[in-house]
Amino acid sequence: MAARIGDGLAGRRVLITQSEDFMGPVLAEVFAEHGADVIADARALADPQLPAELVRAAGRVDVLIANLAVPAPATRVAEVTDAEWRHVFAHMVDPLPRLVRAVLPQMIERRAGKIVVMGSATALRGLKRTSTYSAARGAQLAYVRAVGVEVAPHNVQVNLIAQNFVDNPTYFPPEVQALAAFRERLAREVPAGRLAAPREDALLAVFLASSEVNFLVGQGIPFAGGWVT
Amino acid sequence: MAARIGDGLAGRRVLITQSEDFMGPVLAEVFAEHGADVIADARALADPQLPAELVRAAGRVDVLIANLAVPAPATRVAEVTDAEWRHVFAHMVDPLPRLVRAVLPQMIERRAGKIVVMGSATALRGLKRTSTYSAARGAQLAYVRAVGVEVAPHNVQVNLIAQNFVDNPTYFPPEVQALAAFRERLAREVPAGRLAAPREDALLAVFLASSEVNFLVGQGIPFAGGWVT
Amino acid sequence: MAARIGDGLAGRRVLITQSEDFMGPVLAEVFAEHGADVIADARALADPQLPAELVRAAGRVDVLIANLAVPAPATRVAEVTDAEWRHVFAHMVDPLPRLVRAVLPQMIERRAGKIVVMGSATALRGLKRTSTYSAARGAQLAYVRAVGVEVAPHNVQVNLIAQNFVDNPTYFPPEVQALAAFRERLAREVPAGRLAAPREDALLAVFLASSEVNFLVGQGIPFAGGWVT
Amino acid sequence: MAARIGDGLAGRRVLITQSEDFMGPVLAEVFAEHGADVIADARALADPQLPAELVRAAGRVDVLIANLAVPAPATRVAEVTDAEWRHVFAHMVDPLPRLVRAVLPQMIERRAGKIVVMGSATALRGLKRTSTYSAARGAQLAYVRAVGVEVAPHNVQVNLIAQNFVDNPTYFPPEVQALAAFRERLAREVPAGRLAAPREDALLAVFLASSEVNFLVGQGIPFAGGWVT
Repeated sequence: MAARIGDGLAGRRVLITQSEDFMGPVLAEVFAEHGADVIADARALADPQLPAELVRAAGRVDVLIANLAVPAPATRVAEVTDAEWRHVFAHMVDPLPRLVRAVLPQMIERRAGKIVVMGSATALRGLKRTSTYSAARGAQLAYVRAVGVEVAPHNVQVNLIAQNFVDNPTYFPPEVQALAAFRERLAREVPAGRLAAPREDALLAVFLASSEVNFLVGQGIPFAGGWVT
Repeated sequence: MAARIGDGLAGRRVLITQSEDFMGPVLAEVFAEHGADVIADARALADPQLPAELVRAAGRVDVLIANLAVPAPATRVAEVTDAEWRHVFAHMVDPLPRLVRAVLPQMIERRAGKIVVMGSATALRGLKRTSTYSAARGAQLAYVRAVGVEVAPHNVQVNLIAQNFVDNPTYFPPEVQALAAFRERLAREVPAGRLAAPREDALLAVFLASSEVNFLVGQGIPFAGGWVT
Repeated sequence: MAARIGDGLAGRRVLITQSEDFMGPVLAEVFAEHGADVIADARALADPQLPAELVRAAGRVDVLIANLAVPAPATRVAEVTDAEWRHVFAHMVDPLPRLVRAVLPQMIERRAGKIVVMGSATALRGLKRTSTYSAARGAQLAYVRAVGVEVAPHNVQVNLIAQNFVDNPTYFPPEVQALAAFRERLAREVPAGRLAAPREDALLAVFLASSEVNFLVGQGIPFAGGWVT
Repeated sequence: MAARIGDGLAGRRVLITQSEDFMGPVLAEVFAEHGADVIADARALADPQLPAELVRAAGRVDVLIANLAVPAPATRVAEVTDAEWRHVFAHMVDPLPRLVRAVLPQMIERRAGKIVVMGSATALRGLKRTSTYSAARGAQLAYVRAVGVEVAPHNVQVNLIAQNFVDNPTYFPPEVQALAAFRERLAREVPAGRLAAPREDALLAVFLASSEVNFLVGQGIPFAGGWVT
C-alpha cells in the first residue's frame, strides 16, 4: 500500500517545546504513536539562551513543534500593564525566532524539515479583553508567513495552527468547562458546538509535519470549529 | 496503535465527481489506497438533473468530493462573453448546491459526513486574465463558508481546498510544463518553486475527509506552495 | 487648500444601478452632494442586454457603482432550489461582468475610472441559512480581486465594499429593526452595537470613487461594525 | 451642502507620533489642511515612559495616529539576532499598547475617538528576508483587531493601514527608487505599477480618522496597489 499521512514520521526526531503545557502532552503522545522519536522538553523558554541550548542538546531535529503558551490575560485594553505585555511576549514571541534560527541550518542542509507553530485564531479574529495575547499570536502568524515563504525553496515547510476552542488545560481548564455560561457560549459562538478533542488538533499537527505533503508553506490554518472561516 | 489520519476511511463510500478531470484520477487512487469504496463518476455536471441522479444512484455517500473543473479561460476582462461566463458557472458553480442538497439529508440523518470541494486559490488572490474562473471559484468558497457553518452542528464538515500550482492535466498540461517561461514563472511566483505532485493534494483531501478530525469546518485551505499566505 | 477626498467628483458622471434598492438612494444623494453628475437607473439588471444598453445610454461614465441586490433568501442549505439560486445569480452576479465590460473600454482609453461594487461581508464570513446569497457575493468579491489586479495598470481602480449591518430597506426593513430579537442580535454580534447609517456606507463609496486616491485596487473592504475583522 | 469626509476634523486635536519618519510629514501636512490641530512629536518611542508623557503633554487627543517605524532589516531568517528583534519590537510594537492605554480613557469618556495605526501589508503576506519586521507588523495588526472590537461599543474606532509600496523616506529612499531593478520589481509585483504618493496614503488615514464614518472598526486595510488582495 502506498504512503499514508504520517508514514514518514517513523524514526523521525520531533522536538516539542513546553511539553507539559498547552498542546504538549497530546502532541507527544500522538507523534509517538506515529513512531516518531519524541524529544519533549517541559521548560518555559523565556530565558534567551534556552532555545539554542535545547536544540543543541536535541541534536538532529526533523520536526520542530513550537508549542509556546502562557495563560491568556483577560485584561481590558486600558488596564494592560507593561509587565503583562512583556511576560506574554517573552514566553510566546521572543523564543520563536530563537528556536527557528537554531534549528533551520540543519534542516536547510538536509533540504528537509518541518516547523509547526501551535498558534491561535485570535491572530485572525478580534476578541475583546484579549489584546496582549492576540498581539503575541499575531506576531507568530506574520512571522510564520514570512519565514514560510523564505525557506520554502530549501524544502523546509513552516506553518501555524490558528486554533481556538481546543480542549487543553492551559486555556480551558475543567472548572471553566463546567460552567453553564461557557457551554452556552460554545453553542452560540462555535458552529461545531463543542471544544475540539486534543487529539484532533494533534492530528492536524501530524499532517503539517508529514513528509508526504511538502507544498503547504507559510500558512496559518484556522482550527476553531468554524469560529473563523 | 491508536487511530491515524485516514484509518476511518476503510469501507467508507466516497463519491468523486468528474473523476477523469482535474484531481479526479489521483483522488480515486489515493482514497482507494485508504480502503475507501470509491464511486467515481466521470460525467461533467452541467445538466441540472445529473447531480441528484448521481447521488441517488450512489446510495450511501459518506464523503463527497466535489471535483468540478473546466479549463480556465485566459480572456481579458473586457472580452469575456456571456457564453464563457455561463459555461464556467454551469460546470463549476451551479452543480455544487445540487450535489450538496442531494447528499446532505443522509449525512445529517447519520450525524456524520464530509464534503470536500476541490477549489482554487484564485478565489483568494487576484490574478489577471482569470476573472470568470476566479468569480466561479469565489462563489464556491463563499458557499463552503456558509454551508460549513450551517451544517457543523449536525457533525457534517464541509471544506474547500484553495489550490493552485498543483500538477494536473486540466490546468497544467505537459506542453505548458515544458515551457521555459512556465518554469521561470514557477521559480519567481511560487515560493516552493515547483508544482505540487497530485498525490500531495489528494492527501490534503484525505485529511479533510478523515473521520479522525471533525473540527475543521467552512474553511478554504490555501494549497499553493506559498503563492497565497 | 489642497485637494480633499471627493473634490474630484465635481462634474464627474457617476452611474448607479438599481438606484431605488439597497444602497441606491443614499448613494445618489451623497454623490450629488459632492457635485457629481449622477445617472441613476432604477431597473433590475437580470435581462442580459440591459447592462450594455444602460452604459451606452449613459455615455461617458467616470464612476460605476454596481449596486446589485435582491432580498437574501433564508433557506436552509438542503432546501435551496435551482430557482432561488438562478434568481439570485441572475440579479447579483451575471450583470456584473456585463456592466464591467461595457464600461471598461472608455475608462482604459482615458486611463482613469473607478468601479465600486456594493457587496457583502457574507463573502468573507460564513453565516447559516445564507448559502445562495453568500455564494453570489463571493463570486462578486473574487471577480473584483481578479479584475482589480488586471486593470490597475490602466489606472482604473476596482474595489468592493463587503458590508453587513448597514441600514437599508432591502436587508433591514423597519419591521425587522423593530424586533427586540434583532436589537439583541446587533448587541451580541456586532461590536459597534448598531446598524451603520446609510450615509456612512455611501461615504466609503465616495472614498473608493475619489480621484485623489488611486492606489487601492482589487480589495473587498469589510464594512460591518467589527462583525468581520 | 451636507457633511463630507474630513469636515469634522476642523479643530480636532490629532497626535502624530514619530512625525519626521515614515508617513509623519505628509500626515501632519494633510491633517493640517483639513483644519486639524496637529500635535506632531518627532521622538522615537522606545523609552517606556515616553508614550504616556506624550499623551499627558498633548492634553485632549481626538485622533491618535500611531506612526511607528524603523528601517526594515533584510536579514535572512537564520541570521536574525536578538538585538535586531528587540530593536524592532521596542520601536514598533511595545509603544503601541502604551499609547493606546494612555489615550483611550479620555476617548471612552467622551464616547468619541479615532486611532489609526500606520502598519504594513507584510502582516498579511509573507515576504522573504523580512521576518522580524513582518512579525512586528503582525503584532500590531492582531492588536488592532482585538482592541477595535473591544472599544467599538464606546464609539471609539481603531483601525490600521496595511500598506506597502507607498513612497516614504524610511522604506523607499531616493537611492532605492533610482535603481532599475527596483522599478522592474514594481512593474512585476505591484499591479498598480508604481509607488503610491504619500498624500494618497495620508488621505486614507484621514478617512479612517473622519467623524463622518464610525462603523469601520478593528480592520487592517490593505493599501498596496494590489500587492495584497
